[in-house]
Amino acid sequence: MGKSTIFRSARLMVGLNAFEPGQEHALHAHPGMDKVYHVVEGEGLFLVDGDEHPMRSGMLLVAPEGVPHGIRNTGATRMLVLVILAPAPV
Amino acid sequence: MGKSTIFRSARLMVGLNAFEPGQEHALHAHPGMDKVYHVVEGEGLFLVDGDEHPMRSGMLLVAPEGVPHGIRNTGATRMLVLVILAPAPV
Repeated sequence: MGKSTIFRSARLMVGLNAFEPGQEHALHAHPGMDKVYHVVEGEGLFLVDGDEHPMRSGMLLVAPEGVPHGIRNTGATRMLVLVILAPAPV
Repeated sequence: MGKSTIFRSARLMVGLNAFEPGQEHALHAHPGMDKVYHVVEGEGLFLVDGDEHPMRSGMLLVAPEGVPHGIRNTGATRMLVLVILAPAPV
């Protein structure tokens, strides 16, 4: 999984994450931080709070603070996801 | 100009703004809030700190806290922009 930071301040982090086919970001949570994913290309599954939701290009997905969430690339191509965290992780 | 809120907490606001051809959001600043624009479709100008930069589909533009910025749709079609503000305005 590739990660790149586009913008960072104390208030906000914006990054780009790349998941190759089959790669996943296991369930985790961010206490006190809200997270938004914006799918730039590819497709996969958004795991949130015990459920799975399809994610594909153009979709916006939210993991509010403290809610366990993860991502899995279930497609045949790289999945690119814009990641927004507020406030930024230390 | 049309505005819609997609997600809001104290930490973060994500919205979608629509600018018709010729519409603009005049120069303004957000003390203590960082702002990121992600252009979903259309094209225009990003006015920031006395400069003008082209903005078009797929581009990410940042107005850090306190920096005057604005947007103008200079294209022939509606411009859709995802707007991220952290923390959220009151």
